[in-house]
Amino acid sequence: MLSTETPITAQFYDLDPMNVVWHGNYARYLEQARCDLLDALGYNYTEMGASGYAWPIVDLRLKYVRPIRFGQTIVVTATLVEYQNRLKIDYRIRDRDSGEVLTKASTIQVAVALSSGEMQLESPAALTERVEALA
Amino acid sequence: MLSTETPITAQFYDLDPMNVVWHGNYARYLEQARCDLLDALGYNYTEMGASGYAWPIVDLRLKYVRPIRFGQTIVVTATLVEYQNRLKIDYRIRDRDSGEVLTKASTIQVAVALSSGEMQLESPAALTERVEALA
Amino acid sequence: MLSTETPITAQFYDLDPMNVVWHGNYARYLEQARCDLLDALGYNYTEMGASGYAWPIVDLRLKYVRPIRFGQTIVVTATLVEYQNRLKIDYRIRDRDSGEVLTKASTIQVAVALSSGEMQLESPAALTERVEALA
Amino acid sequence: MLSTETPITAQFYDLDPMNVVWHGNYARYLEQARCDLLDALGYNYTEMGASGYAWPIVDLRLKYVRPIRFGQTIVVTATLVEYQNRLKIDYRIRDRDSGEVLTKASTIQVAVALSSGEMQLESPAALTERVEALA
Repeated sequence: MLSTETPITAQFYDLDPMNVVWHGNYARYLEQARCDLLDALGYNYTEMGASGYAWPIVDLRLKYVRPIRFGQTIVVTATLVEYQNRLKIDYRIRDRDSGEVLTKASTIQVAVALSSGEMQLESPAALTERVEALA
Repeated sequence: MLSTETPITAQFYDLDPMNVVWHGNYARYLEQARCDLLDALGYNYTEMGASGYAWPIVDLRLKYVRPIRFGQTIVVTATLVEYQNRLKIDYRIRDRDSGEVLTKASTIQVAVALSSGEMQLESPAALTERVEALA
Repeated sequence: MLSTETPITAQFYDLDPMNVVWHGNYARYLEQARCDLLDALGYNYTEMGASGYAWPIVDLRLKYVRPIRFGQTIVVTATLVEYQNRLKIDYRIRDRDSGEVLTKASTIQVAVALSSGEMQLESPAALTERVEALA
Repeated sequence: MLSTETPITAQFYDLDPMNVVWHGNYARYLEQARCDLLDALGYNYTEMGASGYAWPIVDLRLKYVRPIRFGQTIVVTATLVEYQNRLKIDYRIRDRDSGEVLTKASTIQVAVALSSGEMQLESPAALTERVEALA
């Protein structure tokens, strides 16, 4: 399956009073990685809009295994794991240097037609054709 | 079980280009509700520190049912559902006026001793005694 | 001049490793106060759009006098100080209990016509008439 | 004077409903650039703490000249302009490709002794010696 790797360095503004990245800020890390994956697929935010669909997140899960600290460089691996009815992406965050797994996560998105506002029960061809072209 | 209700009004800074609250910002809504629940329990962030423990989030799940829009007032209900070995809180976000469910979520926290940095396999008495005093 | 007061309680997610509100988060506090002021004027974000204009921030100044801490309740006073060619708002953030001034700030916004994308050198009647109706 | 350049690509989570970077998010861009400048000086967040001082921001000014859009890569130039009594940094944000100036900004920080919590009227030697060693 399609997979991409996104290196990110934790910034001061990511930290909380425990001197680790605040748990809610991981959603930004995942989004940056997801955008890289969707770029690799040729179906990024701009291309989604042009295809007539928005793809809101309907499910987010995060398992925090080890904290992330100031200045630490992490690598977020995003992997496309479902696409036919919904777009499911799995994430692993690892320390760049040690390779140690720091976080496991997933997101699910569904297509919503921009014209009608209706949620699609099957993924539109704009997505499925791009994924199948990679096979 | 102990439960609290926190009203929040969605702000402009919460919104994304789809004109709805960006999915990552819900972590702030949940945290505000969690702090109200922990205040009601007499075991907030300050009291946690005084008891010798930090309680990092180790698991976060969010199911986005309906979007939240600019100026919409929501009510976040936080309910304590587990406390003996870890602190699990369930959340329901509803529209204040219609009562419609907008989001379902949960968080899990575990105690980490501030002195040793060690994760506790059982919740310390500082938590369990407070919960049991409510029964 | 028109003035409004907005109480806000500092949340855990606002804090940085120094255990005070991170300086960049004050932009959210100011925006919440600005929205209250614009509501009082009958010219909020929705009404701006309906009038055919967006009002981007073109200038932001913040003077941090004293830090804001976890759980502290502040009151943000927003005062309209210019409106004819641009919308200038001054802010004072005070501790709710002591009245002590914690922060001084200002923002400047200019009208941009949504149809042409052009910045307006004079404020449109949609704003000036509302302000003058208050006199 | 010491100057550094930090390239940053605007992310989806940076955007507001106008489809441009929300004005409050620029504080993150400036901080990332400031950290690069302080790294170049050998006086970053960790080294500040080791020297016995925190350096809170006491003044922030931002002039928004042109908006920043999704996927746009900007370069933030940070320049040290004062250091003897306080640490003042000027910023220019430019479009990486066209070189067009998008934003002008500045921050002022002062030293606060970690032991006493007292603001210093002169910059401690930990900063001035590092700056003067560059001359």
